Amino acid sequence: MITGKQSIQFAQAPYILETASIAGKKEAEGPLGKQFDIVETDPMLGKNTWEEAESELQRLAATEVLRKSNLKASDIRYVLAGDLLEQMTATSFGLMNLSIPLFGLYGACSTMGESIGLGSIIVAGGFAEHVIALASSHYAGAEKQFRYPLDYGNQRPLAASWTVTGCGAVILSTKRSHVRVKGITTGKIVDFGLKDSMNMGACMAPAACDTIYQNFMDFNCLPDEYDKIITGDLGYIGHDILIDLLKEKGFDISSQHMDCGIEIYNKETQDTHNGGSGCGCAAVTLCSYIIKQLEKGAWKKILFIPTGALLSKTSFNEGRTVPGIAHAVILEHC
Amino acid sequence: MITGKQSIQFAQAPYILETASIAGKKEAEGPLGKQFDIVETDPMLGKNTWEEAESELQRLAATEVLRKSNLKASDIRYVLAGDLLEQMTATSFGLMNLSIPLFGLYGACSTMGESIGLGSIIVAGGFAEHVIALASSHYAGAEKQFRYPLDYGNQRPLAASWTVTGCGAVILSTKRSHVRVKGITTGKIVDFGLKDSMNMGACMAPAACDTIYQNFMDFNCLPDEYDKIITGDLGYIGHDILIDLLKEKGFDISSQHMDCGIEIYNKETQDTHNGGSGCGCAAVTLCSYIIKQLEKGAWKKILFIPTGALLSKTSFNEGRTVPGIAHAVILEHC
Repeated sequence: MITGKQSIQFAQAPYILETASIAGKKEAEGPLGKQFDIVETDPMLGKNTWEEAESELQRLAATEVLRKSNLKASDIRYVLAGDLLEQMTATSFGLMNLSIPLFGLYGACSTMGESIGLGSIIVAGGFAEHVIALASSHYAGAEKQFRYPLDYGNQRPLAASWTVTGCGAVILSTKRSHVRVKGITTGKIVDFGLKDSMNMGACMAPAACDTIYQNFMDFNCLPDEYDKIITGDLGYIGHDILIDLLKEKGFDISSQHMDCGIEIYNKETQDTHNGGSGCGCAAVTLCSYIIKQLEKGAWKKILFIPTGALLSKTSFNEGRTVPGIAHAVILEHC
Repeated sequence: MITGKQSIQFAQAPYILETASIAGKKEAEGPLGKQFDIVETDPMLGKNTWEEAESELQRLAATEVLRKSNLKASDIRYVLAGDLLEQMTATSFGLMNLSIPLFGLYGACSTMGESIGLGSIIVAGGFAEHVIALASSHYAGAEKQFRYPLDYGNQRPLAASWTVTGCGAVILSTKRSHVRVKGITTGKIVDFGLKDSMNMGACMAPAACDTIYQNFMDFNCLPDEYDKIITGDLGYIGHDILIDLLKEKGFDISSQHMDCGIEIYNKETQDTHNGGSGCGCAAVTLCSYIIKQLEKGAWKKILFIPTGALLSKTSFNEGRTVPGIAHAVILEHC
């Protein structure tokens, strides 16, 4: 089952039984707008703070994925979840009332790859019948957390990404569906010494390169093994860097590569500069557009690689670099 | 293997192959002082910031556990780690140079229970031969993060705990040793509505009660199944509440209960008020005193329950409650 240095190929591949996606107004106005299960036009989601609003995104996504799958919270053995807020308060307050045993995860924007990876290990190992894996982000909460509160009205440089307001949730299960998690490649921290928190695509691209390259090595395959190779939130800048870095290692993924941060907003009309980012970016794109292509077999096999930038406002203010991490998941139509 | 509502009993129980503990000056002056592998008397560990100092604790603990076990970083399939800083920067910067695939975890001060739990699932499921599970905290970093920077010289109320400066690391392995992880009980978020971040023992005691009670139910056992029932960092106040809450549910654990936060400092001479806390509290106590009792068979079977308070300074300032979570691990001499 262990394959190569960093990968697992599941003998009993867990299925993605169901998914749910919830996104905000701006995301609904983008190219994927019609694909989301729930659209919330109120950025506060009826709450008093951005942090509570993001908690509500998680609560709604978890509730929706249970509803769609006809399962109750008590049918779920574990929830594996994370967000971008300090000490993961969106997760703690959002999932509290579910009363499901919780493994809290932090992988920055790579969290959806981490939660599906660990969730798949749990299900494939025979330790659960159903688990929920989810991740969320909120534009306003993330700006306040990492950069400046929106009220300051700071100007966003062209390299900046726009944090997606949304949450995606999947149920990983032993029960058969049309999409399964064939394997995973778990990422290492990769630091190229970049320090610009307004250019996270560049900070994360080396980590994406490292994980994708390792996936090719561990499974002894070429890019055309996959119909799509989908990174989380590199955006336009990170996309170019990733293509270049992998070419240097002898692999050209330009015909397979897709990036959720590029797909989710309209480049010309939505003024998001480098594209979308945040845990929610990869999560809602997976749980809407991507999963539908896999379910109907339009894509047979993809590599999904959410990418995370490992910074805090304190590490940034103290002059530290912004290392990256990327966790890959192999998804297959079946 | 699945037992009851929230527990696993491992058919192939992973072994704790080796442990390492590093602690600071105050911890070294406490009752467990002679048990730690490394004592660092410089609170900055030669670094420029508290955050870098905590990263160094993680780096040193991971390096030491590899040295003690005669393993190389490349022998370790995964590291599962966490800390208390926003966006887990101690973990990101501390473990970067190991180049081991990383699962970042956030369970507040329950993280050592979460990392051993997930690490055991990975090893028991056949997905790794060796993994490292670790957790750290730093007194000055935590005060700055959750309450006030030390420079403000604020007065600590008598209910406050003293965050342990330290890191504990274990190697979970298929290779035989004298201590094994027999099972786990994974906690849910429990919120009793308390809001005082200066009285975290009270905030976490209901979660400890919930997990311990569930462990008794899932394994159909009584408190005397265990030689010791060891919570992470409830301190004196949380200890009293836990004993009372479990009595209300029909279980008296007063003769088995021990708390790492009570053990680690001297009540009379060290002025820590409620005792020790932080991810590092349970982690260094496990990786020094507790593991030695299990290795020599002085204790045959214990329940180890690190306890976490799920707050951030933002959630506190916004008037939210402080929910708790507790993850239990059954450790056995063999």
